[in-house]
Amino acid sequence: MDRIQCIISYDGTNFSGYQIQPNGRTVQAEVEKALTRMHKGLPIRVIASGRTDARVHAVGQVIHFDTSLNIPIQNWRQAFNALLPEDIRVKEVKRASNEFHARYDVVEKEYRYFILNTENEDVFLRNYTYHVRQPLDMKAMSEACDYLEGTHDFTSFCAANTSVKDKTRTLYDVSCFQEDGKVVFVFKGSGFLYNMVRILVGTLIEVGKGKRPPLNMKRVIDLQDRGAAGKTAPPQGLYLWNVNYEKRLEN
Amino acid sequence: MDRIQCIISYDGTNFSGYQIQPNGRTVQAEVEKALTRMHKGLPIRVIASGRTDARVHAVGQVIHFDTSLNIPIQNWRQAFNALLPEDIRVKEVKRASNEFHARYDVVEKEYRYFILNTENEDVFLRNYTYHVRQPLDMKAMSEACDYLEGTHDFTSFCAANTSVKDKTRTLYDVSCFQEDGKVVFVFKGSGFLYNMVRILVGTLIEVGKGKRPPLNMKRVIDLQDRGAAGKTAPPQGLYLWNVNYEKRLEN
Repeated sequence: MDRIQCIISYDGTNFSGYQIQPNGRTVQAEVEKALTRMHKGLPIRVIASGRTDARVHAVGQVIHFDTSLNIPIQNWRQAFNALLPEDIRVKEVKRASNEFHARYDVVEKEYRYFILNTENEDVFLRNYTYHVRQPLDMKAMSEACDYLEGTHDFTSFCAANTSVKDKTRTLYDVSCFQEDGKVVFVFKGSGFLYNMVRILVGTLIEVGKGKRPPLNMKRVIDLQDRGAAGKTAPPQGLYLWNVNYEKRLEN
Repeated sequence: MDRIQCIISYDGTNFSGYQIQPNGRTVQAEVEKALTRMHKGLPIRVIASGRTDARVHAVGQVIHFDTSLNIPIQNWRQAFNALLPEDIRVKEVKRASNEFHARYDVVEKEYRYFILNTENEDVFLRNYTYHVRQPLDMKAMSEACDYLEGTHDFTSFCAANTSVKDKTRTLYDVSCFQEDGKVVFVFKGSGFLYNMVRILVGTLIEVGKGKRPPLNMKRVIDLQDRGAAGKTAPPQGLYLWNVNYEKRLEN
């Protein structure tokens, strides 16, 4: 048996999320269906770095699975893509060690969130950005981003119904920049709680609109109360950008 | 009665084309449904600059219609957009003279065609570009574009089953450029035959791949035979970019 590691990209628009479920089209189900076909009906189970919600996109999701097929590694990508729907693409395939685990071995994940910050909506970006008409204050949001970096209990930024007990996570890098009328948020961290990035973005947008001062971010963290943070930003602006399995180099 | 002129944009992905038809979702039907609701059930007929096919997009389609509603012109856009599906957006609304006609008064139309010319597909651009893996020769295609400019009989670049008799059209500007891994074709002309831009692009791609020399374009025009031109490029790369009603300034 060989363990295979893949980087995959998907357009979340027409998926009920990554994880398999009884009803609704999911990324995992489509990926497993394609692999099962490649394996002549033998069911193949796939492990991903983590789930993504309905309408959330992935530029660099990572999965692993085991195979007994004798396909040269350089032919895998094309063979796999040929059986996948066009809203999922395999970008990279490599042999992994038999100990590699796409979820447990994650060292760092990067999410990006795209806001279209223009007067008018753009029909071509409606599924790929969140449209915010009011101009956002980049300086205030950047300052607010700084307060998020480091190791904190992120209870305030976690969907209230989560069962996870330890809500301490480390954010290595939180920043924002402007590009083509868009505001892009970058979040790099050891791990993320359920809805965490979308609640962080919803709160940062309120800072950008002048509804909260940047320093308020510190207080929201300290309160450990979901009610203290802003609204959950909608899913279509969110991208799982990159998953890193290499030991992080300290700056 | 006031005549209203609008610039609209639509994502053609989920439409069976612009023009109303018995089955299938169309842009015209959605636009007329929204206007009919605004007019408390009174059917409103809309005239566009021309049709677009299934999956073809519009950045600047122009329509006109007559209304007896007393809505200040600056409030029209928002009121209209509120009733339209999110894959159609009204960008501009203005009063037109009662003689204005969105189809008959067209002086010039501009279409653009977007090719993603990269080794790998991009899951986010699959509905918005045509993916061509083989690198295209920009210099050869630019030269071929030059031969298309001017007044010609474009029979070779018209779907064979068209009933239009006079196939002479004038192309004012045909060019191509590169942008973010994409090759963009620009076509400005007095008018376009059915499938004309897509057949032109299909033929230009063959020039870009080295399958035809640029000068061959002249010969294809002269032959007045659809069989002499290349394949029809797929619809999702095509955008109705702009419609001009002002008298064209000669350079």
